[in-house]
Amino acid sequence: MLYLVGLGLGDAQDISVKGLQAVRRCSRVYLEAYTSMLTVGKEALEEFYGCEVIIAEREIVEQETDDILREAAVADVAFLVVGDPFGATTHSDLVLRAVKAGIQYHIIHNASILNAVGCCGLQLYNYGETVSIVFWTETWKPESFYDKIERNRRTGVHTLCLLGMGRKIYEPPRYMSVMQAAEQLLHIIDNRRKREEELAMTEDTICVGLARVGAKDQKIAAGTLRQLAGQDLGDPLHSLIITGRMHPVEIDMLKLFAVDDSSFDKLIIVDGSSYFS
Amino acid sequence: MLYLVGLGLGDAQDISVKGLQAVRRCSRVYLEAYTSMLTVGKEALEEFYGCEVIIAEREIVEQETDDILREAAVADVAFLVVGDPFGATTHSDLVLRAVKAGIQYHIIHNASILNAVGCCGLQLYNYGETVSIVFWTETWKPESFYDKIERNRRTGVHTLCLLGMGRKIYEPPRYMSVMQAAEQLLHIIDNRRKREEELAMTEDTICVGLARVGAKDQKIAAGTLRQLAGQDLGDPLHSLIITGRMHPVEIDMLKLFAVDDSSFDKLIIVDGSSYFS
Repeated sequence: MLYLVGLGLGDAQDISVKGLQAVRRCSRVYLEAYTSMLTVGKEALEEFYGCEVIIAEREIVEQETDDILREAAVADVAFLVVGDPFGATTHSDLVLRAVKAGIQYHIIHNASILNAVGCCGLQLYNYGETVSIVFWTETWKPESFYDKIERNRRTGVHTLCLLGMGRKIYEPPRYMSVMQAAEQLLHIIDNRRKREEELAMTEDTICVGLARVGAKDQKIAAGTLRQLAGQDLGDPLHSLIITGRMHPVEIDMLKLFAVDDSSFDKLIIVDGSSYFS
Repeated sequence: MLYLVGLGLGDAQDISVKGLQAVRRCSRVYLEAYTSMLTVGKEALEEFYGCEVIIAEREIVEQETDDILREAAVADVAFLVVGDPFGATTHSDLVLRAVKAGIQYHIIHNASILNAVGCCGLQLYNYGETVSIVFWTETWKPESFYDKIERNRRTGVHTLCLLGMGRKIYEPPRYMSVMQAAEQLLHIIDNRRKREEELAMTEDTICVGLARVGAKDQKIAAGTLRQLAGQDLGDPLHSLIITGRMHPVEIDMLKLFAVDDSSFDKLIIVDGSSYFS
């Protein structure tokens, strides 16, 4: 049996009771380490589970899946994923190959950034398509994520921006901060204003920066895009939300995390229950 | 301290280790019972936690919040929510009132339907706005959810449809099935075809029905909308996904749950990596 177990977002104790029972039953435990990160190291997991945890780097996930499946065909194997097994990334390939090899799999879900961002108070069913903001280089400055944000803004829904995780083999991973993401967005807004395009968001659009969601030292900052470009939220992982139309209760929630209350003063009541920035 | 604890989607063991520790520390434990349902009853939770669980009906959540907050001001109180505390619905009001009263709160996240639907293989970051399909009556047949699905389809993203939970006080709750939701959609498609509107989805659009996601007897069925209108997926809760543009790996995943493999034959390759139905 192959268990795909979500670990949630904070530390070792965020695994579900069911997930922990499965891990302790397994003869081999892999930890998918490429796409995400936990705030605790492998050692903390090993101590909590009482067994060895094998780090599965990207190469293993893609090329050495055979080993994992060979073991899962004769014993119980756990494949641990930070967040939910099908959260920000997907492990469809592993599942498809398991099914093809006649190996049973079992998914044990957990929180992922896609639902945990609900903690800032913006309603989860008011989000449009999620976008990924990638690291720009000197020569490569794509703006396609901005077009998706604009499309969401025009229909009034919020946008969750997952911030780029750059990593080349033999290089330490780097994680984009809310400051960096906000700066790239400000740059795009400048560009488009020069081209006299009609803008669906500006420097004054209310955004929310989130860092280490689900961990003890989680930070949330709500303010204008320009304000967030000056907010250091500390260690990764960071996420950024661009708001759409907001309900008064959503605004009240965001004010709990306001960089500066006055940035909310510009919001205009458009009808009895919705606001625009 | 007020703990808002997500229970996940399946049974008592889906609570996180951290959540269980918090519950066992609390002097009073409430279970929010209005918006969602677990596959196990309150008794199973009480046995597992080793303490009494008080059902908080909607009236309590909205009107008797004062009691909960009064207790949380002097002791540890847990408020349990099926799924994630900020999942399909939100408990912003409780949080806002706690903050106003100077009571600390702590959120313990868990899986919700919004990320657990990833188990069918459609990539979570390819979803547009979530929609709610409501029960029609003889005289009230709103179609606004269909317009949102069409908007998502035109931009190529998938749509998660949360299926209506109708409940009036003193009436037993009723839950919409995938069959009922599919029938309402077929009805709308018929109406619009008669009005000669250009359709962004048809009877042959690939959809996915999901029942009891995260539970042992979870069921997933992938097929055309017309096929799903004939699929009985059993007990609630049900959800329905209307696909957008699909990646070949997403199609391979859906085929694991196909009502009939041939329904996927009509898919057309538009470019190297995407398909339309």
